[in-house]
Amino acid sequence: MSQTLIVSTQGRGVIDITAQVNAQLKKADAQLCHVFVTHTSASLIITGNEDPDLLLDVEDYFKKQVADADPNYRHKGQGDLDMSGHIRSILTGEAKTIPIINGKLALGKFQGLYLYEHRSGNNTRKLIITEL
Amino acid sequence: MSQTLIVSTQGRGVIDITAQVNAQLKKADAQLCHVFVTHTSASLIITGNEDPDLLLDVEDYFKKQVADADPNYRHKGQGDLDMSGHIRSILTGEAKTIPIINGKLALGKFQGLYLYEHRSGNNTRKLIITEL
Amino acid sequence: MSQTLIVSTQGRGVIDITAQVNAQLKKADAQLCHVFVTHTSASLIITGNEDPDLLLDVEDYFKKQVADADPNYRHKGQGDLDMSGHIRSILTGEAKTIPIINGKLALGKFQGLYLYEHRSGNNTRKLIITEL
Repeated sequence: MSQTLIVSTQGRGVIDITAQVNAQLKKADAQLCHVFVTHTSASLIITGNEDPDLLLDVEDYFKKQVADADPNYRHKGQGDLDMSGHIRSILTGEAKTIPIINGKLALGKFQGLYLYEHRSGNNTRKLIITEL
Repeated sequence: MSQTLIVSTQGRGVIDITAQVNAQLKKADAQLCHVFVTHTSASLIITGNEDPDLLLDVEDYFKKQVADADPNYRHKGQGDLDMSGHIRSILTGEAKTIPIINGKLALGKFQGLYLYEHRSGNNTRKLIITEL
Repeated sequence: MSQTLIVSTQGRGVIDITAQVNAQLKKADAQLCHVFVTHTSASLIITGNEDPDLLLDVEDYFKKQVADADPNYRHKGQGDLDMSGHIRSILTGEAKTIPIINGKLALGKFQGLYLYEHRSGNNTRKLIITEL
């Protein structure tokens, strides 16, 4: 009953997946959509979609709050953005549950659903979408 | 099947909506209640309801952690509490899912469900309540 | 329909409850598992299970970001880790919703589900598990 959504990422930053998730909704009478990232250094956020600057400010915030390559990190060896990526993912969360009304995500006018990639390089992220 | 809950807010701070949400529960055999805020500068938290000071300390924490009117913000023009409100909302989240037992939210004795308004002025916040 | 899971904690830190939650899953056709902590100074996180050092770095992060026994806290009297525990719980959240596939939590290979105890001493934490 669940579906898989694969998102390719090219380095740290957010990708608006609202349209992709909407396009996968299938169940006529579903009331809730659950989206789940199966990784620990990528996450999901819902935030304002009206201004790209807003998304840059969000990234600035996390960059300042969660040190990359902190020399005190014990968990090392997977790159400078790895441990910070785990912490960012904990702070933002791996899942979102969103109401479905008339077969579409019932987001507010200015809400977008974003996959937040926290690592560098090219990554393939697997999401699980469940409708209930 | 979902319902709308409108909450009027008067400036930054939390509003206990536990009783309001409980009052809207209708579905006899529902097991989960999902509450969703359709805005990007208001959010939901569940925290201790036994001491108003606890809620003031929570506000102090976010005020210290997320700068209002940071001169480095790119996203400006909607007031000093706007960009910080977006970041606070990301950190706390726009939705809560809570078990329902015997037709009521199965919160712990000291848990309250709060709408967290992050902006100044008077705002009308639309929440979507879904029972499953 | 929901079940209770009791977890005994011995001071601040994380406890992997993935296997315990999996063992309680009963509903043949369930698609989602919702786990809810009924307390305000313990929470749930999903993060990497491949390296215990990662979990220590997570604790270091929260210890640095949320002051224990901050003299400015108004809410006092329940111990040095109490108010910080409430803030940590808000930042990490009291609930997780996880897809179920073939009767098991459909976590990624490196994802573990952890109860995060934020207080000192021995505590008995009651969780509610709901399958839908």
